[in-house]
Amino acid sequence: MKIAIAQLNPTIGDIFGNANLILESARKAASEGANLLLTPELSLIGYPPRDLLMNPSFIAAAGDKLQQLAQDLPGELAVIVGTAIPNPNAVKAGGKSLFNCAVLLAKGRVQQVFNKRLLPTYDVFDEDRYFEPGSQSDFFKLGKIKIGITVCEDVWNNEEFWGKRSYAGEPFLDLVKAGVDLVLNLSASPYAAGKRGVRSAMLQHSVIRSGIPIVYANQVGGNDDIIFDGSSFCINRNGELIQVLASFETDFGVIEYDEAKRDLVDVTLQNPTEVKRAPLSFSPQVGDAEIWAALVLGVRDYVRKCGFSKVVLGLSGGIDSALVAAIASYAIGPENVLAVLMPSPYSSDHSVNDALELAKNLGIGMEMLPIADLMKAYDRTLANLFVGTTFGIAEENIQSRIRGNLLMAISNKFGHLLLSTGNKSEMAVGYCTLYGDMNGGLAVISDVPKTRVYSLCQWLNAGGIGKGKDEAEPLDLRYQADSGNESVGAVPPCPPSPSPCPPSPCPPSPCPPSPPYPPSPPYPVFGNEIIPGNIISKPPSAELKPGQIDQDSLPAYDILDDILERWIENHESVKQIVAAGHDEAVVARILKLVRQAEFKRRQAPPGLKISDRAFGTGWRMPIAKASFY
Amino acid sequence: MKIAIAQLNPTIGDIFGNANLILESARKAASEGANLLLTPELSLIGYPPRDLLMNPSFIAAAGDKLQQLAQDLPGELAVIVGTAIPNPNAVKAGGKSLFNCAVLLAKGRVQQVFNKRLLPTYDVFDEDRYFEPGSQSDFFKLGKIKIGITVCEDVWNNEEFWGKRSYAGEPFLDLVKAGVDLVLNLSASPYAAGKRGVRSAMLQHSVIRSGIPIVYANQVGGNDDIIFDGSSFCINRNGELIQVLASFETDFGVIEYDEAKRDLVDVTLQNPTEVKRAPLSFSPQVGDAEIWAALVLGVRDYVRKCGFSKVVLGLSGGIDSALVAAIASYAIGPENVLAVLMPSPYSSDHSVNDALELAKNLGIGMEMLPIADLMKAYDRTLANLFVGTTFGIAEENIQSRIRGNLLMAISNKFGHLLLSTGNKSEMAVGYCTLYGDMNGGLAVISDVPKTRVYSLCQWLNAGGIGKGKDEAEPLDLRYQADSGNESVGAVPPCPPSPSPCPPSPCPPSPCPPSPPYPPSPPYPVFGNEIIPGNIISKPPSAELKPGQIDQDSLPAYDILDDILERWIENHESVKQIVAAGHDEAVVARILKLVRQAEFKRRQAPPGLKISDRAFGTGWRMPIAKASFY
Repeated sequence: MKIAIAQLNPTIGDIFGNANLILESARKAASEGANLLLTPELSLIGYPPRDLLMNPSFIAAAGDKLQQLAQDLPGELAVIVGTAIPNPNAVKAGGKSLFNCAVLLAKGRVQQVFNKRLLPTYDVFDEDRYFEPGSQSDFFKLGKIKIGITVCEDVWNNEEFWGKRSYAGEPFLDLVKAGVDLVLNLSASPYAAGKRGVRSAMLQHSVIRSGIPIVYANQVGGNDDIIFDGSSFCINRNGELIQVLASFETDFGVIEYDEAKRDLVDVTLQNPTEVKRAPLSFSPQVGDAEIWAALVLGVRDYVRKCGFSKVVLGLSGGIDSALVAAIASYAIGPENVLAVLMPSPYSSDHSVNDALELAKNLGIGMEMLPIADLMKAYDRTLANLFVGTTFGIAEENIQSRIRGNLLMAISNKFGHLLLSTGNKSEMAVGYCTLYGDMNGGLAVISDVPKTRVYSLCQWLNAGGIGKGKDEAEPLDLRYQADSGNESVGAVPPCPPSPSPCPPSPCPPSPCPPSPPYPPSPPYPVFGNEIIPGNIISKPPSAELKPGQIDQDSLPAYDILDDILERWIENHESVKQIVAAGHDEAVVARILKLVRQAEFKRRQAPPGLKISDRAFGTGWRMPIAKASFY
Repeated sequence: MKIAIAQLNPTIGDIFGNANLILESARKAASEGANLLLTPELSLIGYPPRDLLMNPSFIAAAGDKLQQLAQDLPGELAVIVGTAIPNPNAVKAGGKSLFNCAVLLAKGRVQQVFNKRLLPTYDVFDEDRYFEPGSQSDFFKLGKIKIGITVCEDVWNNEEFWGKRSYAGEPFLDLVKAGVDLVLNLSASPYAAGKRGVRSAMLQHSVIRSGIPIVYANQVGGNDDIIFDGSSFCINRNGELIQVLASFETDFGVIEYDEAKRDLVDVTLQNPTEVKRAPLSFSPQVGDAEIWAALVLGVRDYVRKCGFSKVVLGLSGGIDSALVAAIASYAIGPENVLAVLMPSPYSSDHSVNDALELAKNLGIGMEMLPIADLMKAYDRTLANLFVGTTFGIAEENIQSRIRGNLLMAISNKFGHLLLSTGNKSEMAVGYCTLYGDMNGGLAVISDVPKTRVYSLCQWLNAGGIGKGKDEAEPLDLRYQADSGNESVGAVPPCPPSPSPCPPSPCPPSPCPPSPPYPPSPPYPVFGNEIIPGNIISKPPSAELKPGQIDQDSLPAYDILDDILERWIENHESVKQIVAAGHDEAVVARILKLVRQAEFKRRQAPPGLKISDRAFGTGWRMPIAKASFY
């Protein structure tokens, strides 16, 4: 029996488009002689659908499309699709109105439904909000083979591996007890640094303990803040990874279940030239290459799924905006990236020069808008009100907000998505200006600590891309412009929805006229120093007053990041952080800043999540609150 | 037996302050001869604590404080406190790490713990994220009386009342079966318009069905976006509301359980002059008075709990900012409200005059900052880049963002909290400018539809305050300045934390020097036309281009609000909305605008929730998504 895996990149709520992705995969699977196609969790509606699930007409539309899909699929192929279906007993028995389920489609109709039992409700997950847990695990037979079905979290309650239970039930063990030959898993497991290695190690442990092989199909792609890395895989009875699908891109694989051996066998090995193969291992180490690839995918998909084709960002000459510009260039092509330099009288010459050099290295568009004139206009306007006060935070923030306004004006005028460039360390302590440098539709590196920003830039300059320096797999995620697309570099398209070109204050107004842009630069050959050395080596500064540097008011970034990681990700107490060697006064000051900056983070754009605990949808902290330590 | 109810207003995470509130109530209860004191849900830590619960040192500190409190309480009084305690079986049995519980403190120590069984996980509630449900309901005996304990949602699963079950378990019925004489409920039940009447009707139904009386203690106060109305009550065996505590303010009550009658009896009726009495009914009708009172409380508590004393807002001459200015004046006193007029060349004379008249009526501070000079400076800065383009959304938004920047500069300079003034209809369709008029620490009326904004202003002008026109209870929630406080109107205090005076970009910088303000105006006598009639009667306009009015691009607000309510609150399908009499093309256009505006709402300030479905923490919608209808 041949099983195909479709590692799909669905768009949330795009029932029609997602059904087409499934259909295309099914046709490919059928053409390759597969008997069964496995798709990711909620493949028909995309994960996470969030409150779209609360709309009965959405659920009804998904139900209709599922029936249609069953009829459209190739006749002899069985297909497992993930979707949400109503819980018929909700009103009578009490319970949530939906199940998160895997549906077996075959012979033109729904054959069987398998409800997810373990519903993650932590971090970015809210499944208890929508779904009733399934009451039991089940299997189906294909020929003589008993195939157990699990959905994502169902295989994560491995007490022996984690040293603790997370749920009462153990769907995987229940299926083993039921005598299945094979377990399939439909997943939408978000990326976090190092998680690929943990994920495969956990399932290898489960397989070795049970002797039952696993086929694991994960969603790929960015959906708002959450990046799904794909990295689907198959593990044979010995616990060996025998097939691994690509990370950070759509992929398709076929594996054979050998009835005689009662095990999975990689048939594609017989034709190694036909298939692109990812290496059969994941490092549990966190590498720059994987974080880079995740961020590139996150930007590319947010831009694409929101209907944009171009982005704009402010380039300060600092390392954060340099990294974001590089990521954006790789994600959507440098010809689609516009960098804006907005020097003030406090900007150093080297900042401007460094930014210009970077833009040249990347081959991105560049505009210069000095802000001294606007600063003076604000001074004049506020002169009477501010008379007798001294230059301070208000005046510093005005500069940042002037820049934020200019960038939004460009975004509104030309339909470019604005990217914000603040890192996680800044977001944590509030070292950023609300309605200023925090402006944007997507916060590209808001989950990347400053120390990692440095490391990523160094990795980039050392030629990391293409070399796969710290990972087994070579990563070449550079954007390939569609050479057949003649509109590239021409007049930007009418800004699609949802657009940062706000419909307000006259929502139905026509698309603003889009003037021609400077012609695209040729696609760059990235040299060995993409990020100018001076950007990496100079002391970081917001340059909002003369001579200012970050370390005037913050500890060194390695100290800051260690304190932040202990507090935010590891939930350590003040006592524990101090016991780890940090100065108590510094810790107290940093944690106070973290608490005070909550109101800023609440209004931040979605930020790409690469850690186990990011600010964003998985960070739910009150604003009006007292300190308890 | 006498039972006291402490309707408390805790601050989230303020374990020390909240313990003191409980202690003060206990002393008062003891002095009034009570045997038992009931406090609201999570009274020790405040509701909702959200991700503070994920910090083990927070839970440990709450545990320590609970033990201390047990020792500090008056000796002969039993006190029921709400808090979160660790689930000892979480690691072994699988489950969440905490219980949401009621703890019986008496004789210096914890006597018994009652775990909440029904955990709301919908709308703004995330209890499954943190808590393991209790496995059974329990009671304790005080003398011969068997007292059953429930926590909030535990009494909401009344299948007969709702016509459906929401959970499998029925804690209230279980206690009835266990033969309790009385049921107590610790609640933190958020306000929504009309909910007080529904809440009491549901519990009257439960009591009549079971013959068991209920004492219901609800939290009061605003915590970020959520307003708790208090409105605690007691229902005797006949299902009569025999004692009702105040709505929208802290309160304290004592009720007697008469062992001979096996029923609750209101002993305070014997001394009617001693106690302030709320009327013994709640209207299920939604009235302007209750919404007004909720918003006033929400503003007052957000300002206070964030450590501010003054607010600033932009006054446009339109009805939204007029209403917010009025609410703020009542909430914290007009001497603490600064209105800023920022006319542009597109502002009409009447707008400026209307705004001036309103400021005079309210007695609030007023500043005028014309923005024409700044508009020209932006034009100059962007001239080369925008050459050949025509005036459009970009230019309109620049005006709004100039105003947003000026308001934030004032907020940063003087430590005033900025209030934003957009209504729910605007937030729904994106008729608002991100980083412009959406700027603020709190969105006061972002859950108030435009039609309700009109109704509130008319109610206000008709002398609603003090008359309690559409409600049984008279509401006089006007802020009473502490006459002993000599600092009122003097130099504003150093902005406390968390402050909109961002620590960025130099977090530990000292408080900016605060120049003296114009002396406070005398506390106003509010006339019969607080909101100038012209503000109510003129066609609403954003005034961002000549002659612009809202209805150029939106349907009439009564039509818009009806469509929005059907879609957002009632989850109706397009088909249903059209069947209700709306034009299909209009519906399609409005729903498209709602979908497109998601990216703006994601970055909006917390907004005071007064409906069953507000944008904010209970609205979790993907941004990058496709339409499914």
